[in-house]
This record gives sequence, C-alpha cells and structure tokens, in this order.
Amino acid sequence: MDKPSADIIVKNCSELLTMAGGGGKPKKGTMLNNVGMIRRGAVGISDGVITWVGREDDIGSSVKKSRRTRVVDAEGGVVMPGFVDPHTHIVFAGSRENEWLDRLAGKSYLSILKAGGGIISTVKATRKAKKQDLIRKGLGYLRMMLDFGTTTIEAKSGYGLTLKDEIKILECIKELNSIQPVDVVPTFLGAHALPPEFERKEDYVKLVADTMVPEIARRGLASYCDVFCERGAFSAAEAKRILEAGVAHGLKPKIHTNQFNDIGGTEVAAKIHPESIDHLDVISKKCLDDVATAGSVAVLLPGAAFFLDGGIYPDAKAMIAAGVPLALGTDFNPGTSFCYSMQFILSLACIKLGLSVEQALNCATINAAHAIGMGGVVGSLDVGKQADIIIMDLGSYKLIPYSIAGNNVNTVIKKGFIHKVKDPHKADWTE
Amino acid sequence: MDKPSADIIVKNCSELLTMAGGGGKPKKGTMLNNVGMIRRGAVGISDGVITWVGREDDIGSSVKKSRRTRVVDAEGGVVMPGFVDPHTHIVFAGSRENEWLDRLAGKSYLSILKAGGGIISTVKATRKAKKQDLIRKGLGYLRMMLDFGTTTIEAKSGYGLTLKDEIKILECIKELNSIQPVDVVPTFLGAHALPPEFERKEDYVKLVADTMVPEIARRGLASYCDVFCERGAFSAAEAKRILEAGVAHGLKPKIHTNQFNDIGGTEVAAKIHPESIDHLDVISKKCLDDVATAGSVAVLLPGAAFFLDGGIYPDAKAMIAAGVPLALGTDFNPGTSFCYSMQFILSLACIKLGLSVEQALNCATINAAHAIGMGGVVGSLDVGKQADIIIMDLGSYKLIPYSIAGNNVNTVIKKGFIHKVKDPHKADWTE
Repeated sequence: MDKPSADIIVKNCSELLTMAGGGGKPKKGTMLNNVGMIRRGAVGISDGVITWVGREDDIGSSVKKSRRTRVVDAEGGVVMPGFVDPHTHIVFAGSRENEWLDRLAGKSYLSILKAGGGIISTVKATRKAKKQDLIRKGLGYLRMMLDFGTTTIEAKSGYGLTLKDEIKILECIKELNSIQPVDVVPTFLGAHALPPEFERKEDYVKLVADTMVPEIARRGLASYCDVFCERGAFSAAEAKRILEAGVAHGLKPKIHTNQFNDIGGTEVAAKIHPESIDHLDVISKKCLDDVATAGSVAVLLPGAAFFLDGGIYPDAKAMIAAGVPLALGTDFNPGTSFCYSMQFILSLACIKLGLSVEQALNCATINAAHAIGMGGVVGSLDVGKQADIIIMDLGSYKLIPYSIAGNNVNTVIKKGFIHKVKDPHKADWTE
Repeated sequence: MDKPSADIIVKNCSELLTMAGGGGKPKKGTMLNNVGMIRRGAVGISDGVITWVGREDDIGSSVKKSRRTRVVDAEGGVVMPGFVDPHTHIVFAGSRENEWLDRLAGKSYLSILKAGGGIISTVKATRKAKKQDLIRKGLGYLRMMLDFGTTTIEAKSGYGLTLKDEIKILECIKELNSIQPVDVVPTFLGAHALPPEFERKEDYVKLVADTMVPEIARRGLASYCDVFCERGAFSAAEAKRILEAGVAHGLKPKIHTNQFNDIGGTEVAAKIHPESIDHLDVISKKCLDDVATAGSVAVLLPGAAFFLDGGIYPDAKAMIAAGVPLALGTDFNPGTSFCYSMQFILSLACIKLGLSVEQALNCATINAAHAIGMGGVVGSLDVGKQADIIIMDLGSYKLIPYSIAGNNVNTVIKKGFIHKVKDPHKADWTE
C-alpha cells in the first residue's frame, strides 16, 4: 500500500489531542474522558485533508514527503482540532451594551423583552441594515473567532422575522461561509421572537411554518430549523408545529429550550428527536428523561449565565450521569452572550459546570461537531477529516481552561490554509 | 508661544478617553464617573511623550507637524490610556493547573497551603529555576499583557523566600523592565508565605525585616515592600513589623489583606498608610473605616474570586460610598488567578462588583497608576505624560466590558513605540 503523502506536516507538538474515536455520534457520554492524546505526535495533511496522524518518530517511515512539503513547527505546543462552536447568532446590526448595563443594574431579561427591547431592538436594526454592512460586521466576528481558534460554527438567522429579512440574513450567512475560512452551518430561526407587527402569535407561527420554512428550504438556505421555546417567545405546541414543518421540508430540527423556564420544550424534543437541544439551564428530572429519550446532543451555553449574571448554569453532571452527550457553545449574540471565545467557555465549563478538562475539550470539538451534523467532517484529528487544527502556546492541555480569558492560540490551520494569529513566543508554562 | 510638535499623531478616534484630571492622587472616588471623553479627539506625541490632546479638527492650528510626522489612523476606534495592572506576580517557575483542578473538585485553598502545596510548590520550582528561564517565561506573560493592552504593571517577588532567591527574582523583574516595552514597578514580597525550612515564623519575620529588607533596599531592587496578611501566612503584627522595616529603608508599604479572613490587616493599614491595600474581599464596617482612614488606594482583584470559584467578591460599592479610591488588577499568578487580561477584569468589575463602565475604566488606568506611584507618569492622556495609548476595534467604550473574554486591542503605543497587535479589521459593532 502506498504511504500517505503530505503537503503540510505539523510536528514538534508536546501533546497532540486527536479527540479520535469520534466517528460515530456520541452516546451515553462515551469519549468524554479521553482526549486521544499522542505525546510527540504529528499530523500529515494533503490538499486540506488529514492523511496521517501518529508519532513524530514515525513520520519518516510512514509519510511520503516531497520537496514542497511544508513543515509547521508547533514549538512544543499543544495541537488539537479547531474548536467547533455549535450555537451562534453572528448576523445582526447594532449592539446592546446599554441594555446589558441596565440589566446588570437590576432589570430582568423578560421585562426588557416585554418593553420591546431585547431581541426586537436588534430585529429593528437588522431589518434596516444593508446586506453588505451585515456581512462586513459578521466578517469581523468570524475573524475574531478564528483568531481564538474556532474553525467551524453554526449561525442562526432570527433577527429578520419577515420572509424577506430572514432570507437576507441567511444569504449573508451563505456569503460569509464562502468568503472566509471558518465553516458556517446555517440555521433558520424565524421563531426567535414574535415580531412587533403581529398581534396574534398564531398568525406568525402560521407564516413561519407554512410560508417561511418551505421557501427557505426550497432556496437551500438552511440545514436546520430552530425555535426559541420560552415564556414570552414560543410555546411547546408552537415549537412542535414549526419543527415538524421543518422536518417535512428537509430542515433538521434544533430547539432552544429551558433557558429561563420549563414550558414543555423537552417533551417536544423527546418526540421530535432534534439534532441538538440547546440551553437546558432550568431542568427537572422529567426534562432530563426527555432529553435522554430524544437522543439529541445537549448544547450547553454557560456564557449566557455569566453575561447575564444571576443566570442559572445547567446541571451538566446530571446530564452526563443520565447518559446525555454534551457540547459547549458560546451563544454569541448581542443580547445575552457577547463572547466569541471558546477558550473562555472551556474555563466556565470547568469552573461553573464542574466538567473535567477532558470532558470540556470533547464538548468543544467532536461533540459540538455532532451537534451540527459535522461530526464526520471536523472535530477530531482522524484521517480523511478536514485539516482544521490549532496550535497553542502551552505545554499541557490542562492549561487551556486554567488560562482565564486569554488567547493561547498562535496558529490556526483551516483546510490546509495556515493562519498565523501571533508571532510564536512560547510562554513555557510547564518546565 | 510655540506650538507643540508631534512625531506621531493618533487620529480618527470615535471616542478618545483621556481619563484627564488625573494629576493628583484620587480622593473620595473623584473622577470615577468621568472618562474625560473627546469625540473625534486626537493625540500628538513627541519623543514618546504626549505633547497635545484635543479635537482632531484643531490639529492643523495647534500642532507643529513635520514631514516625518507619522499618522496613526485609529479607524474610528476607541482610544485610551494603556491599562495599568497594579498587582501581579509574573516571575515564577512551573504552573499549578492540577492544584486548580483539585480545588474546583472541592479542596480548599488553605488545606492545599497546609499540605505544602499552594505558594510553596511554586517557591520550590522557582528556587531551582535559572534566571534566564524565569526571564523567558516572564517575557511571554508580558508580551501577552501588552497584546491585551496593558502598558504598565507592578510585579512582586515572593516565590524565593531566601535573600538569594528574592534577589534573583527582583533582578529578573529589573531585567524584564529593561528588555521589553511594558513598565514594571518592582515590589518586594518576602513575606508571601513561611518557607518550609523555617519552623518558627518569628525567625523568618526577623530575617525578612532585619536582613532582606535592608539588603534589597540597598541594592535598589524594589520600590515597595508588601506582606500577605492572612491566616496561614502573616499576622497583623508581623505585617506591621515588616512594613515598618520597609519604610525605615525607603520601601513604600503595600499590603495584601482580607482576601479570605479578617485578621487585622486593615488596622495596620490605618496606621501605616500604605500606597495600596489589596484584595479586601472580606471586610467588616470597621475594616472599611480603617481603609478610609489609611487613605490608600484599594486594589480589587476580582479575577481571584472568579478563578477560585466560590470566592467572595469585594464590596466595591460600599468602598466607593465610604470615599475609598479604587483600582483594579489581575493578580496574575499561578495559584489563584491565571489571568493577564485587564479587559476581562473590567467585565468582572461590571458584572460582579457592580461598577459602572466609567468607574471600572478609571480603576484600570489612572487609579491603578496611583496605586503604584505612577499617577504622575501614566494612566491618563495628559500633556507631559508618557505616550502609553491603546486603540481598540470598538465604536464605543461601553463595549469594552460587554465584549467578554475577547481582545479588542489592535494597536498599543508605548512611549511612542508602535506595537501592532493584529491587522486592523474593524468590527463595526455600532453602526
């Protein structure tokens, strides 16, 4: 058999975290405690695809190099798959720092929502915005995500809330996916909030289910259909109706539920089996059973509880005990989590959710990839997967969450494209 | 009168935060609500010193330019003084991520300290380390601080705990100050922990007060003398003795106190009037009165409470109400706050301490400068001060704490040295 060839070889890694074994959908929390570490490991890449993973000492006998093979020296750093952020809202206009400051001063999220603030204020700004401005803004966020090591994200619409504006946002997401390196998986979230021009929610639900879903599916603008199932947003019955419409038109379901209140979203999930159930900050034993029954990946978003303060952190340990596969995301959005750093989410996962470092890393890579249907393509360093790799200025992966609110990534390789985040300046944290 | 000349002009700032008025030591929380904003402001710099601050429209009539004047385009960003971090421990060997993970799993700080872990494990590693390795490691941290917008720090010894090793660390700090751009103000912290080879604390206190302090002062290796006044570390009486020895030899006092317990440190402060009183997480009304009496700047370090979880955040609002001037620092160290980002500390200050953005920004610049005796030199954009300036990819300063755990700095100017942190890629968060 021919040796695999490599146009890029990544070597001199103190720890190579392959997260390998991630070929199948995570079940019963498997893999959560294993980062698939190879000490002094190396990776071979050809045409943006991983062709070989092994020990650096075996490169000579295992990999076919050419004169054009480029060697990327990790300088003794930690090398692992790029982070996958399975829940973001990156296309929107404006910002909501004043509302955030008001909230820190005591106003509640639901009271702000009721007063026409919250999501609706972003909807108004986004409807007015030109596509080119939304794209420029989204590009800025994606660049920062890439700088912080995120190579694949999911991005939701939901700040348009008319067919025209939802299409505009999804077209921006499509354009963003094509003009910069980070892979962007599109989700239609028409049911994010009731738009102000609707008096009766049932009229809007009908519009979403019967008009928006078919048209967006027809145009191929989304892989997923999502609903914000929450008091003040959409009921469990409304969520079910919209998600079923999505499924009928080929859009896989996702659901935001139990962020602030339990209004039955997990019961819907147990019937619909969404790819992911997101938030789950407020859950009963019954909800937990529903989530386990659904067989979905639970996407936990601790950035929101931190950002909103006084927010409730999800009971990750109970979910793991119940065999629910977990993922972590930023929930990047202007109202409840203005945070694009998956490295910080890892710190929150260890500090606030009680996850081990190994569990957290699985949640931020391979499990996150499964939460957005990309588990076969990214999220682990396996031969045949995309070469989405980050190099960190650290001597041990345990330093990733320990280093709070920093950026330890110095190089991002995305499908063989090498992005230097900063000059190498090894910190030598672990002599 | 001649116009001031400029070899660098910073312009195209959406908001220029001068933090001006910061000439004197902060009193009774003055200035805390004012960031000295000039919209469409500009700064003139000559030989690394600020020569002019005003409106961009007035540059032509107010500033003498030459053909060699370099224009730095802030591209509509926020421009402000570099952050001043008034409390760090940057020179040490090893790291303590395993201890951190143990602690998250339930072990207490004081039990780890008692078992010879904690500070002592870093002391053992630091004593063994070569100077060149400590310097290389410190350089890495300083580079990251600079990348995140910090232009002046205070750095403490305290991981040597013998005269020889404390001198070694302070010599590393001196060397670090001279070989990279960030100003480093040195503090002697011989009384950080009781070294393992001492059975009787009084013997070590005598060594610190009678031998180390005079020798370190004689060598000019420190501006400040600091003591960790805490159960398991040094008593109030021991702190007093050591700080008085420092004062007698020209080392200005600082004190770490009331981080976990109230053992009388503020009472000592009320008598000694340290330049700063640091931590103050656990304080009674009586302690607050002591701090107000001391007239010191209170340096709050919320990163430690976040890092340790379950930690207690200081009651900043009570301190402001009592007229105590506040500053913010990272407390960067391997055991209780592995965080170098003052931007994140600003987020914590708004979320966890209830400070306004304006208060937090004052605490992280001019007040922090006063806490380390640099208030006349850095911390505000005033004519005659060092040109220590950061440019952030933001349209409003309110976005600084709102943007959680990121890095919005794209350019740092340190004494006229221009350091590009990243390619400009304006995010346009506020159309």
